[in-house]
Amino acid sequence: MPESLRTRLAQIEVHPGDPARNTARMLECIESASRDKVELIVFPEMAVPGYLIGDEWERGSFLRECEACADEIRAAAGRMLVVFGTVATDPSRLNEDGRVRKYNALYVAHDGTFLHPASGPYDFVVKSLLPNYREFDDSRHFYDLRKLAAEEKVPFSELVSPVIAPSGLSLGCMLCEDAWDTDYASKPLEALCARRAHILINCSASPFTLSKNNKRGRVFSAHAERHRRPFLYVNNVGIQNNGKTIFTFDGSSCAYDGQGHSMAAGRMFEETFPTFDMPIDGRPFGDPLDLRTDGVAEAAQAVIYGTDRFMKSCGVRKVAVGVSGGVDSAVVAALYSRLLKPEDLLLVNMPGPFTSQTTIGLARRLAANLGCLYTEIPIGDGVELTRRQIGAVTAASADGVLTRTLDLTPFMFENVQARDRISRVLSATAAAFGGVFTCNANKSELTVGYTTMYGDLGGYLANIGDLWKTDVYELAQHINANLFGREVIPAGTIGLTPSAELSEAQNVDMKKGDPLLYPYHDSLFRSWVEWWNRASPEEILAWQAEGTLKEKLSLPRQITRFFPTPEAFVEDLERWWNQYRGMGVAKRIQAPPILAVTRRAFGFDHRESQMGVTYTRKYEALKKKLLSGQTKWFRAR
Amino acid sequence: MPESLRTRLAQIEVHPGDPARNTARMLECIESASRDKVELIVFPEMAVPGYLIGDEWERGSFLRECEACADEIRAAAGRMLVVFGTVATDPSRLNEDGRVRKYNALYVAHDGTFLHPASGPYDFVVKSLLPNYREFDDSRHFYDLRKLAAEEKVPFSELVSPVIAPSGLSLGCMLCEDAWDTDYASKPLEALCARRAHILINCSASPFTLSKNNKRGRVFSAHAERHRRPFLYVNNVGIQNNGKTIFTFDGSSCAYDGQGHSMAAGRMFEETFPTFDMPIDGRPFGDPLDLRTDGVAEAAQAVIYGTDRFMKSCGVRKVAVGVSGGVDSAVVAALYSRLLKPEDLLLVNMPGPFTSQTTIGLARRLAANLGCLYTEIPIGDGVELTRRQIGAVTAASADGVLTRTLDLTPFMFENVQARDRISRVLSATAAAFGGVFTCNANKSELTVGYTTMYGDLGGYLANIGDLWKTDVYELAQHINANLFGREVIPAGTIGLTPSAELSEAQNVDMKKGDPLLYPYHDSLFRSWVEWWNRASPEEILAWQAEGTLKEKLSLPRQITRFFPTPEAFVEDLERWWNQYRGMGVAKRIQAPPILAVTRRAFGFDHRESQMGVTYTRKYEALKKKLLSGQTKWFRAR
Repeated sequence: MPESLRTRLAQIEVHPGDPARNTARMLECIESASRDKVELIVFPEMAVPGYLIGDEWERGSFLRECEACADEIRAAAGRMLVVFGTVATDPSRLNEDGRVRKYNALYVAHDGTFLHPASGPYDFVVKSLLPNYREFDDSRHFYDLRKLAAEEKVPFSELVSPVIAPSGLSLGCMLCEDAWDTDYASKPLEALCARRAHILINCSASPFTLSKNNKRGRVFSAHAERHRRPFLYVNNVGIQNNGKTIFTFDGSSCAYDGQGHSMAAGRMFEETFPTFDMPIDGRPFGDPLDLRTDGVAEAAQAVIYGTDRFMKSCGVRKVAVGVSGGVDSAVVAALYSRLLKPEDLLLVNMPGPFTSQTTIGLARRLAANLGCLYTEIPIGDGVELTRRQIGAVTAASADGVLTRTLDLTPFMFENVQARDRISRVLSATAAAFGGVFTCNANKSELTVGYTTMYGDLGGYLANIGDLWKTDVYELAQHINANLFGREVIPAGTIGLTPSAELSEAQNVDMKKGDPLLYPYHDSLFRSWVEWWNRASPEEILAWQAEGTLKEKLSLPRQITRFFPTPEAFVEDLERWWNQYRGMGVAKRIQAPPILAVTRRAFGFDHRESQMGVTYTRKYEALKKKLLSGQTKWFRAR
Repeated sequence: MPESLRTRLAQIEVHPGDPARNTARMLECIESASRDKVELIVFPEMAVPGYLIGDEWERGSFLRECEACADEIRAAAGRMLVVFGTVATDPSRLNEDGRVRKYNALYVAHDGTFLHPASGPYDFVVKSLLPNYREFDDSRHFYDLRKLAAEEKVPFSELVSPVIAPSGLSLGCMLCEDAWDTDYASKPLEALCARRAHILINCSASPFTLSKNNKRGRVFSAHAERHRRPFLYVNNVGIQNNGKTIFTFDGSSCAYDGQGHSMAAGRMFEETFPTFDMPIDGRPFGDPLDLRTDGVAEAAQAVIYGTDRFMKSCGVRKVAVGVSGGVDSAVVAALYSRLLKPEDLLLVNMPGPFTSQTTIGLARRLAANLGCLYTEIPIGDGVELTRRQIGAVTAASADGVLTRTLDLTPFMFENVQARDRISRVLSATAAAFGGVFTCNANKSELTVGYTTMYGDLGGYLANIGDLWKTDVYELAQHINANLFGREVIPAGTIGLTPSAELSEAQNVDMKKGDPLLYPYHDSLFRSWVEWWNRASPEEILAWQAEGTLKEKLSLPRQITRFFPTPEAFVEDLERWWNQYRGMGVAKRIQAPPILAVTRRAFGFDHRESQMGVTYTRKYEALKKKLLSGQTKWFRAR
């Protein structure tokens, strides 16, 4: 048995749904690893098919293609141990949905064969723990080792087994969630250690989430230390999606020694191949790395990477951005200017009846700072035409008994402006430019539907759609200070009152604009949307009553500094809850794909139903108490 | 022990996400059942919370509200046996996602308590089999009895147990999927019978799917007959959704005697309360019913019911329908006219540069036949304004080095027309009318993205979005013949060449229009989208090669009658596969909610990922063979 192993973590980019392409890349990696005398190469989970591919698992032709690819990798393995994840099928059994049996599987290829785990019916390792939260739908498609144990009538721990190489080396192979066992009754990692695996290998397909790397580092390092064994974590890079939600994969693969120190790591969002001689007894093989990351820089990197890869996957080469002079569109434009040549990026300002010279000036300045194409296309004639046409309508029944005229209210006219900008002007402009146009909505707006359908909610991708307004400001500062090292987003844009400029009531020069108090509302909405145990108006009133609301929501100041009276506080709370649960849902259904950054992005990560707005009876009781003066309204000091 | 039991199936309408409202209704039902001396009343699965409610299960306040409601039902039960489904939590344990433990549970309330199943830790029955296919996400939220058995380290069959009433009556209680056990290793129904349950009770929340009732009848009747016990199936009515996909629930509750005959049944899509004296020994208690249903009538009923309930749930009272003179918009308008007063339904024809007098005439005729409001609002000025504005653009960089002019191609001008119609004219018209506007897209169009984003893909609901074009024609005939008993959809509309009329190449008077050969393409697309084991171009070429394509796709004639050459056949196949997997996905992400009718509706039922278009290597090989003449091209005789 070897004392140490020349090991390579193959942090490759995986292209979901394209097994042939992924396999070609893996074969290249195997060939080059062979030249480099690598003895163990580890690829990510689902390296052949990709992971987030919707219901494509149901297509037999796709599954057969994946199996043929796995066979090619087997044939190419030679003397190396090649560990990789893919889908495996068992045509003799069925899944619980009556379709062919499928496993989220890990193969160890060596010398023209797949090494058989020490127990179990297959020549591959079966994933034991299937995540079914957030964007994950594992149980929808795959049978797991726990069900297999029940079906085979053997204890689970007997089926979990290491893969033993001809050299006697025992590989404790897992797939992703198998090492995140805290809340599962079954513990595959423990079972592998009990069965004396020498090293632990975790193949993952783990989407990027802000701050997840720090947590993963703690969890995996603790596993390595506790079991005094080397632990290899391999994750892919690239993007994958479930339609509405686009996930980036940051790689961040890592090798831990038996004391839990990070010895080697893949770079974030880049194909990298950390290679090292790993002592199998757990001794260190390098200096411990500090892999902690910083929030805003990490978010910026994820958004830029995800946008780049999404453009490539859709074949987008030119982009038009509607720029209002505000911070959201400025951030979006600045991010695209990192990815496109100036002649492929077109900023379009579309002034309307309520647009100020201030914001037009800011839009021009932004374009000048970025050096890209810029134009102004007014919407005045378009919206007047619509107003005139609607005003002239007389609808009638054929017999003339029923007649009806139509009249646009000022509120409807706001939406007419937003739709004229996007669906009439910007759509045609982007098409004629040979590209697409962006959706610049942020998460605060998406939460409460503060956008117009077929207006500013339109676009091919909402790349800042998972960032709160307060995050967008932080990102704007980061873009100037760190990405460009100069003021590309004008200071005037960052200092501007947020406003849609669709009516006189939204006059930025008079500091009038959005009805949202972002430092409060972002925290409030986060508690409704992002918290693992999600809050609702009931908890908000309960915390207000017990005096803990500021602390619970991490508010910059007491709630009484945001609202003068309990009535104003409650009215605001209900206004936004109604929007979040009502029109907000309807609008999100028709929103563009959203690039996920936080631990809860709208779409397949935050699944929701249009079911009208309700309040619990306990909420109603708390409200009554508060409004009747029985609850203390802590006044600001 | 009683020989027979006065039994009521409470086929109520469940309002998802509104426990207080559902509970109020259930309490009314219990009270009236009590007056009627009912001894056993059975409500549906998840009668308190609703079933398809997205991730609302994660909100503690919602769970607490549901538990308080269950307690009220318990308190109200009196001497009756009240069986109902709801969510149950165990605050002392966690789900695998680290959130509080939740079960899809069934309670039997009696005399102020919940009757405890004969074994297991809880005073409720836990669902054993959790569906994770189609629209179902059960494992995402609920722990099942199989996992509980593993956690408690007892055999599954020991935990499955009847609920024994004080009278000695043993109730074999199940939830929905528990009786659909064919492809599961665990069989709760068998275990209940082995433990001598006298009667079998299945509480379900089972969405309507075309032809599902016939299948369910066969499956449940067989259970009753095999085990020689009465079998009660109770399902709710109403609608529930997962955002993108709206499901109707048809009820169709049914009581079977011990020979498997249907003895009593709830009406489809109606609250009904079949009540009967049921001998517990399985003897018949009435004349067997024939419950077989007919396809198109059933589909029409589902669409009308679902549309009605969706309007109500959104508070929609007035509807504008853009009517082109074609069959899709005519069917939509006719369906709405069943639900709205003539003054609340506005048909809008929006003639453009390529609109014929033929189709305008058909639109007028339709409105006259329906007696509702009608108007015409031309888009000529709007599209000319856009053409002029785009043509006048010169975009430039601030330093003047880069400049760029724009030009609209005829294809882009087609989209300009579609967007002008919907996002400029119809959106504003519907708003000023005080209502919403419909999306008239059918499933054939949605499959291949044969719609314009922010154009005819827009709308508040696509109520025929799960019907193929050929189904829409059938529905049109049914509407005239059966719903109205007269020609409301003009014969000219049904006979019209399907066309978008967006260019001279789509001139209906010259019989030019859509590029789809619906009798072939609908079957082809169905094989890609709806088949349980979905086909792809690889299978299509394989079947062509073996001469079975006509039979496999149930085509009305040989493929050679649709395409003169193998080249034309392959080119068409790839054109639509590219559209289905490419732009089709992108468009569906931003499509309106779709009312589900078939066994596979786009959205949460048919999950998909934007991942570009691929073909398997086996497909490429088959194509090469076909195009090089090595595969027989069976000529039409």
